[in-house]
Amino acid sequence: MQIDLNADLGESFGHWTLGDDVALLEVVTSANVACGFHAGDPGVLRRACADAAERGVAIGAQVGYRDLVGFGRRFIDEPPEDLIDDVLYQLGALEAFARVAGTRVQYVKPHGALYNAIVHHEEQAAAVVEAVRQYDVRLPVLGLPGSAFLRRAREAGLTAVPEAFADRAYQPDGTLASRREAGSVLHDAAEIARRCVRMVTQQAVEATDGSTVQVAARSLCLHGDTPGAVESARSVRAALEAAGVQVAAFSGAPAEGVAGT
Amino acid sequence: MQIDLNADLGESFGHWTLGDDVALLEVVTSANVACGFHAGDPGVLRRACADAAERGVAIGAQVGYRDLVGFGRRFIDEPPEDLIDDVLYQLGALEAFARVAGTRVQYVKPHGALYNAIVHHEEQAAAVVEAVRQYDVRLPVLGLPGSAFLRRAREAGLTAVPEAFADRAYQPDGTLASRREAGSVLHDAAEIARRCVRMVTQQAVEATDGSTVQVAARSLCLHGDTPGAVESARSVRAALEAAGVQVAAFSGAPAEGVAGT
Amino acid sequence: MQIDLNADLGESFGHWTLGDDVALLEVVTSANVACGFHAGDPGVLRRACADAAERGVAIGAQVGYRDLVGFGRRFIDEPPEDLIDDVLYQLGALEAFARVAGTRVQYVKPHGALYNAIVHHEEQAAAVVEAVRQYDVRLPVLGLPGSAFLRRAREAGLTAVPEAFADRAYQPDGTLASRREAGSVLHDAAEIARRCVRMVTQQAVEATDGSTVQVAARSLCLHGDTPGAVESARSVRAALEAAGVQVAAFSGAPAEGVAGT
Amino acid sequence: MQIDLNADLGESFGHWTLGDDVALLEVVTSANVACGFHAGDPGVLRRACADAAERGVAIGAQVGYRDLVGFGRRFIDEPPEDLIDDVLYQLGALEAFARVAGTRVQYVKPHGALYNAIVHHEEQAAAVVEAVRQYDVRLPVLGLPGSAFLRRAREAGLTAVPEAFADRAYQPDGTLASRREAGSVLHDAAEIARRCVRMVTQQAVEATDGSTVQVAARSLCLHGDTPGAVESARSVRAALEAAGVQVAAFSGAPAEGVAGT
Repeated sequence: MQIDLNADLGESFGHWTLGDDVALLEVVTSANVACGFHAGDPGVLRRACADAAERGVAIGAQVGYRDLVGFGRRFIDEPPEDLIDDVLYQLGALEAFARVAGTRVQYVKPHGALYNAIVHHEEQAAAVVEAVRQYDVRLPVLGLPGSAFLRRAREAGLTAVPEAFADRAYQPDGTLASRREAGSVLHDAAEIARRCVRMVTQQAVEATDGSTVQVAARSLCLHGDTPGAVESARSVRAALEAAGVQVAAFSGAPAEGVAGT
Repeated sequence: MQIDLNADLGESFGHWTLGDDVALLEVVTSANVACGFHAGDPGVLRRACADAAERGVAIGAQVGYRDLVGFGRRFIDEPPEDLIDDVLYQLGALEAFARVAGTRVQYVKPHGALYNAIVHHEEQAAAVVEAVRQYDVRLPVLGLPGSAFLRRAREAGLTAVPEAFADRAYQPDGTLASRREAGSVLHDAAEIARRCVRMVTQQAVEATDGSTVQVAARSLCLHGDTPGAVESARSVRAALEAAGVQVAAFSGAPAEGVAGT
Repeated sequence: MQIDLNADLGESFGHWTLGDDVALLEVVTSANVACGFHAGDPGVLRRACADAAERGVAIGAQVGYRDLVGFGRRFIDEPPEDLIDDVLYQLGALEAFARVAGTRVQYVKPHGALYNAIVHHEEQAAAVVEAVRQYDVRLPVLGLPGSAFLRRAREAGLTAVPEAFADRAYQPDGTLASRREAGSVLHDAAEIARRCVRMVTQQAVEATDGSTVQVAARSLCLHGDTPGAVESARSVRAALEAAGVQVAAFSGAPAEGVAGT
Repeated sequence: MQIDLNADLGESFGHWTLGDDVALLEVVTSANVACGFHAGDPGVLRRACADAAERGVAIGAQVGYRDLVGFGRRFIDEPPEDLIDDVLYQLGALEAFARVAGTRVQYVKPHGALYNAIVHHEEQAAAVVEAVRQYDVRLPVLGLPGSAFLRRAREAGLTAVPEAFADRAYQPDGTLASRREAGSVLHDAAEIARRCVRMVTQQAVEATDGSTVQVAARSLCLHGDTPGAVESARSVRAALEAAGVQVAAFSGAPAEGVAGT
């Protein structure tokens, strides 16, 4: 059994710091690095790529809407042809820092409102897929199981990697409970770790009504910018390893802790 | 005898259009494409790269300060380590569009206030050189003869390409007359073309005091965003070709008119 | 009979120029001045306000989404509480230049995608209204007849001013034909002028199917950034004056041509 | 004896939080609120103004260069005529929120690299002064004693208010020790408080060589975004009050602790 752990990184900007990238990089195997449109200035990108490369963590392009003030969390009704170019621009910019760090961008994971939009928004989903296809058809994309994005990615010949969420409540139909509902985000580190082990070893998770939902994920998304995020991430990884799960990047990059063996 | 003709392109942004890129691309052999920091949105970059590639025009990264409102024409006292990363970010972003267009970024030419600053500003000159060196030591840089930038580029093992200016008045010491002085920018297309032929065939130009100044340039910079720019550019190229000069990209890319032979 | 003529101004940015503000200011009685979020840098705002004030043209705050690259033409799903503050920020910024020009901001007209959104988007419509109410309840707002925006403005005690469009095709139900449909934008200056006279003197316009639609507008919107915009605007004004219509700002500011009498 | 305490506030942006504004507002009597160019989005400005107004703290416009990524800490060689307009834009934007909070902008204090530049840069100093003069000649400006800025402000008829720094080392000539020198920023809260009391009650401070330097300040600048900033600010205020100093806004706004009497 094997699983990838991914988290958002590189989301500081200028004088503003967000998250503890270095600590998270000791735990995750895939780093979704912001590319400057919703967060991440060039210096932040360099350090995130260098720190990830040093630890054998795979670098993913966390592309988003051009919206610093909204942190990419507001849907922008952007023409698909412009979105293709926005994604390419961000991909290329991050690639420069991955390259300088001696590695490559190894996957693409859309951020925030773009991530949510392309679950259903066919034109924007197609645009993100088209950008990746034009850039490098071998580049996998990471997204929500059942989304238009992953479906279109597969149709376009890309590797579509489904992820599950470590700390989010699932509804009986397998979709995530809305963040606006009480209890939609879990905070108990032990419970989160236990659920993660079950999701990986049994491909199942308990839904909000107590029923069991099937979850087929090759990566678990951990949150990086909440209080206690790093501790929770560590306990998830420890629990997985204790259960005999190999934690490794889905993209095949050598992961920290694996590289050494 | 051979010379390269370069001009700034891709300097539109969103709803705002600047210059006639397609017409200029019929004349020049090297296109300095803006990278989004002083001008050029992702869609503009795509079109500039596609149009250049289609015509066999070499694509250069016209990197600048992050200053849309100032069009990169205001010096920013940026720490060198940040400037390295700003250049890398822009280089990578443009590379994505060059790649999608089936080609590569083939050189780097700083823009505006950055171009002027690194004539003398040693730390910023070193920063731009360091960025290019880290990215790809085989990438040539285009700049002012005698500048700190070209000197440091050579010292770092880069190919440093000096350029001359088609429409600027030269002082007796070989430096450019300040734009603030009357007569510093030439407007007569015939005179500009005549001077260009002399600069290329005799490595000389008449200075403001009537004396002759030596000019050793592998590229001539044409201006693209002034009224009559395209016509002037055409007459320069025609005069050069009539004088038996081969017009071709210094970077070795197949140039329009050459590709067909 | 009296009518106001409004047009968008101040939409240049930095090195990029858009429209011929000075020429338009000789024709219109109300200037919708961009406030920096979708267009208009501080220098542009100053000149637009100074030029408008000099000619007795009323200054309106043309507030928009924070979206330079999209020119404010892309819907942004912004939380209403943030939109309130975005509008206030823009209003205040423009007020500084109106004040320095010896006058005041005299009305508010949302721009682009925001204008279109608040025809139906109740929460964003309420947000724009709330911003104006908080700032100055005496400030009129200009918008589309029948829109949620004007309805909510009236309910909040603001003066809601409906406008008609000089060069747009109307559907039989009184709404505008979509810009995507052929013929939705009129280009014949004589026809535009004739329709404007009818809209003002008979409160009626011919719809796309030949039927007659009622139009009750206190202002006519002229377009400023299309080829022939200024000429068309001049012919509209001349036709209105020839028909005995007094052209004057709806907000009561002394209009050009009136100030002199 | 009376003194004003000022600190920078409103320097968060979007998802990024900086400083503890509410806690600082319980201590200072003047709040230098960022205006959106180097920090501070519209929502941040609203809350800073509302929170300041509620506590009777005077609101100052902390105007800076347009440089989010550099937090306004990089000199920009901006033409003075553009700087005038940048200051006006920021002043007006902040005024909108002060007005909605039931008060007014009561002074102007430049930020970061602009603050430092106009100590010596005559043209930029004149530009900031000219902006304030055009906006409201009754608006005081806060700056460094001996600076070109305060001198030109006085010459232009503005009220020029000199400030001293609570936690910075002074050189024997009365200028600040460079931040690059060891010991230039003091960290011991008790020592800072002691120095502040001496600066206010004796107009003197001990310089880096042990000599005594005269300090004539109507306001003390406290730093808000360093660890321990709030605690240090509280101890300064407590020490001043224990020494019989009245802590009140220099601009005459009712200060917290005064309003209640």
